[in-house]
Amino acid sequence: MSQRIGFAGLGLMGSRMARNLVKKGFETTVWNRTAARSAPLAAEGATVAATPRELAERSDVVVACVADPPAVERLVFADDGLIHAVKQGFRYLECSTVSPETTKRVQSALRAKGGDALEAPVTGSKNGADAGTLLFMTGGPRAVHDELMPVMMAMGTKAIYCGEMGQGSTMKLIGNHFISLMLEALAEGVVVGRKHGLPLETILEVVQASGFASPYFAFKGAAIGKRDWSEHFAIDLLVKDQTLMLETAAAARVPMPGLAAVREVFQSARAQGFGREDICAVVKTLERAAGESA
Amino acid sequence: MSQRIGFAGLGLMGSRMARNLVKKGFETTVWNRTAARSAPLAAEGATVAATPRELAERSDVVVACVADPPAVERLVFADDGLIHAVKQGFRYLECSTVSPETTKRVQSALRAKGGDALEAPVTGSKNGADAGTLLFMTGGPRAVHDELMPVMMAMGTKAIYCGEMGQGSTMKLIGNHFISLMLEALAEGVVVGRKHGLPLETILEVVQASGFASPYFAFKGAAIGKRDWSEHFAIDLLVKDQTLMLETAAAARVPMPGLAAVREVFQSARAQGFGREDICAVVKTLERAAGESA
Amino acid sequence: MSQRIGFAGLGLMGSRMARNLVKKGFETTVWNRTAARSAPLAAEGATVAATPRELAERSDVVVACVADPPAVERLVFADDGLIHAVKQGFRYLECSTVSPETTKRVQSALRAKGGDALEAPVTGSKNGADAGTLLFMTGGPRAVHDELMPVMMAMGTKAIYCGEMGQGSTMKLIGNHFISLMLEALAEGVVVGRKHGLPLETILEVVQASGFASPYFAFKGAAIGKRDWSEHFAIDLLVKDQTLMLETAAAARVPMPGLAAVREVFQSARAQGFGREDICAVVKTLERAAGESA
Amino acid sequence: MSQRIGFAGLGLMGSRMARNLVKKGFETTVWNRTAARSAPLAAEGATVAATPRELAERSDVVVACVADPPAVERLVFADDGLIHAVKQGFRYLECSTVSPETTKRVQSALRAKGGDALEAPVTGSKNGADAGTLLFMTGGPRAVHDELMPVMMAMGTKAIYCGEMGQGSTMKLIGNHFISLMLEALAEGVVVGRKHGLPLETILEVVQASGFASPYFAFKGAAIGKRDWSEHFAIDLLVKDQTLMLETAAAARVPMPGLAAVREVFQSARAQGFGREDICAVVKTLERAAGESA
Repeated sequence: MSQRIGFAGLGLMGSRMARNLVKKGFETTVWNRTAARSAPLAAEGATVAATPRELAERSDVVVACVADPPAVERLVFADDGLIHAVKQGFRYLECSTVSPETTKRVQSALRAKGGDALEAPVTGSKNGADAGTLLFMTGGPRAVHDELMPVMMAMGTKAIYCGEMGQGSTMKLIGNHFISLMLEALAEGVVVGRKHGLPLETILEVVQASGFASPYFAFKGAAIGKRDWSEHFAIDLLVKDQTLMLETAAAARVPMPGLAAVREVFQSARAQGFGREDICAVVKTLERAAGESA
Repeated sequence: MSQRIGFAGLGLMGSRMARNLVKKGFETTVWNRTAARSAPLAAEGATVAATPRELAERSDVVVACVADPPAVERLVFADDGLIHAVKQGFRYLECSTVSPETTKRVQSALRAKGGDALEAPVTGSKNGADAGTLLFMTGGPRAVHDELMPVMMAMGTKAIYCGEMGQGSTMKLIGNHFISLMLEALAEGVVVGRKHGLPLETILEVVQASGFASPYFAFKGAAIGKRDWSEHFAIDLLVKDQTLMLETAAAARVPMPGLAAVREVFQSARAQGFGREDICAVVKTLERAAGESA
Repeated sequence: MSQRIGFAGLGLMGSRMARNLVKKGFETTVWNRTAARSAPLAAEGATVAATPRELAERSDVVVACVADPPAVERLVFADDGLIHAVKQGFRYLECSTVSPETTKRVQSALRAKGGDALEAPVTGSKNGADAGTLLFMTGGPRAVHDELMPVMMAMGTKAIYCGEMGQGSTMKLIGNHFISLMLEALAEGVVVGRKHGLPLETILEVVQASGFASPYFAFKGAAIGKRDWSEHFAIDLLVKDQTLMLETAAAARVPMPGLAAVREVFQSARAQGFGREDICAVVKTLERAAGESA
Repeated sequence: MSQRIGFAGLGLMGSRMARNLVKKGFETTVWNRTAARSAPLAAEGATVAATPRELAERSDVVVACVADPPAVERLVFADDGLIHAVKQGFRYLECSTVSPETTKRVQSALRAKGGDALEAPVTGSKNGADAGTLLFMTGGPRAVHDELMPVMMAMGTKAIYCGEMGQGSTMKLIGNHFISLMLEALAEGVVVGRKHGLPLETILEVVQASGFASPYFAFKGAAIGKRDWSEHFAIDLLVKDQTLMLETAAAARVPMPGLAAVREVFQSARAQGFGREDICAVVKTLERAAGESA
């Protein structure tokens, strides 16, 4: 493990991903906007950088897993941003879910200084980040994908090359679009079923015995059954991604009537105070819309 | 196989289900509104009834698989309807996808004459009907469910008891609601992906490697890839079920904003002449909405 | 006023319309499903019929203003329905908002006995019914329209001939579709405006000074400002009409994505217990969706 | 008319507004990104500035009417932007429809140099711009509103003060949200009416005789009747505003399910090549969705 890794963004996903890098023996430096979150990683052997620039100085590869496009802007382009420390051969692995435009801008800036970037948003949620079983969907130069496979495989088990820079982000947004409609299907189905006396367990049993079964329905159905809204993937973040998907679609002039309707339901969930809860908490918003006290 | 079976409705699903009853050795009589469709079954050993009443006279159990609530009305209550031949112990197995109200009305009429009914709509599409691997979701008396298991297991491999009369139909409508949103997710995703240079194959590879994978995406994705719109489940029928679901939801005062949006897309597909094609043909409507010539 | 008039349906609209017939000197008989509602009209000079059949026996023209298609079925076709008293020259004026299919069925039955019908749904709400300033949109034979003008003009000030039987009902449903989207525009606008510090009064002032001004915004805006949800047009009835519109559109294979989205909002308002309140109470549902306690 | 006016943005609206300033005797300088559009104004007496900075140097008040937030950024903050020429007492009148965030940023920058701004988006479309009958909805300091009244009244007939900076823009976005749903109502109504044999003229006659009449329906209905898609307000611009409205709503956590559904229809119209046509051309997209060849 000769590469020195920097990790920026120690949230729900990032902290778990960084931990796996440390465990697998990479020399790892971490940075987080609120510094306190770095302490647990430091205790496990990571070095803590004070700024993104310092993070980049100490690393051959910086992995980023931050919240949204403005957070990437801050990480890369701020006065103490990592761009100022980029040297020939530097690599940036963008694991955040952001817009294709954002990843392209970062790549251009890095290339101008002899570095390069790969976008590699992930799926697998908190559990996959813990277990090191994430799936990466990458966009950028094929050679950079190959070069960074060892880094990705320290945090996950599969990386699918999706094409040029921007296509990894687009693929990730499409994936979250799938999640959005599947979760809406589950939530609407659960509420209408209950009103007609059909228990959640029966619905899940039938769905999982059918051709449209999915592990996702079992996973989220179980949480709804326990009314466990603890965060695997927060509603605030999913709405951010739904909005990026609609913008990306608008840029290509593709209407997405299904997603547009569903986003407003999740938007309502945020308005009702569920933004930091898991996305399955959207069922509470549908219950309220159906007149159930919540 | 001492029970004599009548089968009403020899469409895409019904003809295959009836064939399996004949193959498994049941003494089978068939009836179809347009008589010509009975000929192949007759050649394989089924008797042909001229009217639903005659069908019921020749049978201990009548299995129905017809298009919609009016077709059930005609089958059961017309002047030559099966209700006029119902005797003590007669059983009716409703495999059509209809509204809970319809199945309840039929059951009441049967009970008044000493018979009884089980609703048992199916999932598994054309291929499952062919192979005898359908899944039944049943509603009605538990004893009738148990009694009719041998008949169901001649056509399928599993029957899940969902509760009292009406809950099997509601479950089926919820299942088709899932299908509707999953197919919309796939279709919107495929169109926006292609506009951004992401091939269908990559989208499917990522989806199927993720936690929200489903055999359904592989099945329908492959058809879209081949632009094979041959009918497994026709758009006209799915829209009929979406409308029944929205009515059933309205009766319970449950808004279903996701399904309402999606139904209008499938409605548009009907308007554009795709009503008799497979439901995956909805992708053509989204392509047109996105300005692609079709 | 040589014609004897029967009036069926003494609800919010009907009671006011019947009162104007009495006031204008028509010999008027009334019938209502719950008989108690007839008493005030009787006190003003109307005769009370015990059944729709008796109503028709006592009248040359029966005017109907009932809730929905099943209520029309009951009025016309029940064992004591008016159809059994129809004679040569009998006229039926359908002022209820029902489906084109319903009015066509009634007309056929009347014609078979030498009568005829005109559909003439109204707009103008409670205040217009009171003041006798309703607008009728008629469908059916032009000659019957002309013949019944004096009856209509006792209750309103204008009748627009829309074409053959069914087109008056379709026009009425289109009108309520306009109302639905205009009210949704107002309600969404009011909620988002308030969250950004824009008072309702300012929004209304600007809207009413613009090219898209409408008396409707002033009328409903004032009620929202006073949080006065007393019924002019109940949410339950508007949802009934939205559903008829979507069915009528589906019959012609016309997708209505705007109306479909809006209906689910009104559906939610019913679920939350506002069904008997005025349609402007939909703003409360949007407030809840936006996280405001209600 | 002692104030020297600069006008930036000579598009469909701006060119007409600038012309009225010249006509009313203001000493007027103009600037447009593509310089050729300045020629007609120059012929009528306006001076042409080469850059926004020069425009500001030659003016006491700069009026802007440009396409979107990036165009405002370019006008104000570019290397040759007007901000570099701002002196004590300078006034900026923002007539573009942009986001509240944009107008607030510009105001801050101006105040830092001793100037100030008023946002004053307009309604009235091309005809109102021609005739000088626009309506302004203003946000910012009340004193600046009063100070700039003579300038606004050279281009319009009314200015409604909406509150602090940002509330004029929000009001404008709400106004365009009204327009969006009213136009969708009209377009869906026209298509479903025609399929049922109801001519546009009858629909308009009934609507205009009803309580929900609006001059807007007459204006846009007439254009649809003539299939005249020439631009008064382009679909591309309305979609831009719908998107800004949804962003502004999201910032306040207000779901707008009606607008979200409608935006996707207009998005589809852009995809089908109607982006530069008038917003009433959305009817063509609904015709296609309803299976009519277009």
